[in-house]
Amino acid sequence: MKIIKLGMIGFGNVAHGFIQSLIEKKTFFRKEMGFEFLITSITDIRYGTIYNPDGLPLKKLVSSHDFSEMDQSLFRDWNTIQMIRNAESDVIIELSFTDLKTGEPAVLHCQEALLSGKHVITSNKGPIALHYSMLKGLARDNGVKIGCEGTVMSGTPALRLATDSLLLTGITEIKGILNGTTNFILTEMENGSTYEAALEEAQRLGYAEADPSGDVEGFDTAGKVAILAHLVFGTFIKPEDIDRVGISDITLEDVKAALKENMHWKLIGSLKKTETGVEAYVKPVMLPDGERHSVPH
Amino acid sequence: MKIIKLGMIGFGNVAHGFIQSLIEKKTFFRKEMGFEFLITSITDIRYGTIYNPDGLPLKKLVSSHDFSEMDQSLFRDWNTIQMIRNAESDVIIELSFTDLKTGEPAVLHCQEALLSGKHVITSNKGPIALHYSMLKGLARDNGVKIGCEGTVMSGTPALRLATDSLLLTGITEIKGILNGTTNFILTEMENGSTYEAALEEAQRLGYAEADPSGDVEGFDTAGKVAILAHLVFGTFIKPEDIDRVGISDITLEDVKAALKENMHWKLIGSLKKTETGVEAYVKPVMLPDGERHSVPH
Repeated sequence: MKIIKLGMIGFGNVAHGFIQSLIEKKTFFRKEMGFEFLITSITDIRYGTIYNPDGLPLKKLVSSHDFSEMDQSLFRDWNTIQMIRNAESDVIIELSFTDLKTGEPAVLHCQEALLSGKHVITSNKGPIALHYSMLKGLARDNGVKIGCEGTVMSGTPALRLATDSLLLTGITEIKGILNGTTNFILTEMENGSTYEAALEEAQRLGYAEADPSGDVEGFDTAGKVAILAHLVFGTFIKPEDIDRVGISDITLEDVKAALKENMHWKLIGSLKKTETGVEAYVKPVMLPDGERHSVPH
Repeated sequence: MKIIKLGMIGFGNVAHGFIQSLIEKKTFFRKEMGFEFLITSITDIRYGTIYNPDGLPLKKLVSSHDFSEMDQSLFRDWNTIQMIRNAESDVIIELSFTDLKTGEPAVLHCQEALLSGKHVITSNKGPIALHYSMLKGLARDNGVKIGCEGTVMSGTPALRLATDSLLLTGITEIKGILNGTTNFILTEMENGSTYEAALEEAQRLGYAEADPSGDVEGFDTAGKVAILAHLVFGTFIKPEDIDRVGISDITLEDVKAALKENMHWKLIGSLKKTETGVEAYVKPVMLPDGERHSVPH
């Protein structure tokens, strides 16, 4: 049995989902894959750092919002960088908050982990959209890997499909619904909610942040478009330089008028190879009935 | 520029499509990938063997049905095994006819190529459905690879998606329309053709063989189900042991009756992990409207 030790940065929704998944698939990993994951450390700027080289209690963690129920002996007086350096781990799971302007502090976390010879897996769009080439080079130089499949379309292997499986087909265009929160809001509006009510419901369910602009103004989608441009087309575009229109100006009347023609408003991220580079945009688009659940052409 | 030399076995539809693709993507491969493909040899039991270590004329080949317009100096008195051994090549592209009972002669071709230290890429279901483990072991022992993505759903990365990208999700069930010819026939019947007329049209277009039983009786789908069982679930099932019903008993009346209820007859290949192994079948199934173009759940 191969033991793989994980150090985790951030203890929010994605972290909880990841831990839940480790619990559910434990038998599968052991019996069919021959390995076992331990989370040896978690650090979160709000709750501090906990550590156990033999593995933290996953079931207790998944049902906790913070670390208040954790045994005092588990706590360490480490900041994130110290956790990366000191905690016994093979892989650092970087799940801190996304900043699409600077990528920090996640870029620093990734650099530190790679320099310490630890693999990195991140769902954080910042470092990947802004500094993927540098981080990939750093990983190569240190004999480790950086994984970022979760940054675009969560678990769906959207990046890998393009960069590995379909590489030699010569992809020329990518277009799709890349943000779940806006999709939820637009669907609620099709069911009769106003934009404001739909947004409030998305916030209540934890899909949208208190400041929802990252989702509804299309910044999140722009970050994902930048990642696709970088990984699939090898082109660096700053998320803030991507032409971008969000959904906050779409009214219930717009949605109803579209529905009458069997059309559906969706926030689309698009990128297309051109003679001179890559053309990218984020904007609401009306799609016909059959295409609303699939990637439009 | 890295030159990759290919030796090709079989000069039918797939071979022509492959050569066409090499021509169309030549610039892409050179400029963006940094390599160039040459086909140095092609052997076909009907037309003989041609060879040029500096590359055969692809444009002339793609517009030829056989080798009758090839320069006499290109011909070699080699059978397939001699071509594999003698022709300068890095990769053998195995595109001979599928035999799902024995896998031969393709199994022999693959073995010979791997033993000669040449990579193998095949679209032939026989060797993969029946002898994948052996061939993969042989490849490993000889420091080369065997690729078989084309055996199921042609270019769609159906196998790779399951074996690489989605491996750790723990796939438990696979179901889908795996045969294009029967799908064409059933679609023609929805447009009013009888089964016989639709089959004739499929034969005229070169989709179905003169003896169409491989497609319409579900043997081809069973071969693909066996490949999926082997590669995704690690379970060996002989194609002939898979429960199998074809489409030859489906009448125009059946198709019309289904259409009235917005249902569509489709030939489905299915496999499912169970406590004791893998449950597999091939049979016509009625699917509701929205699912006819997608993989049903």
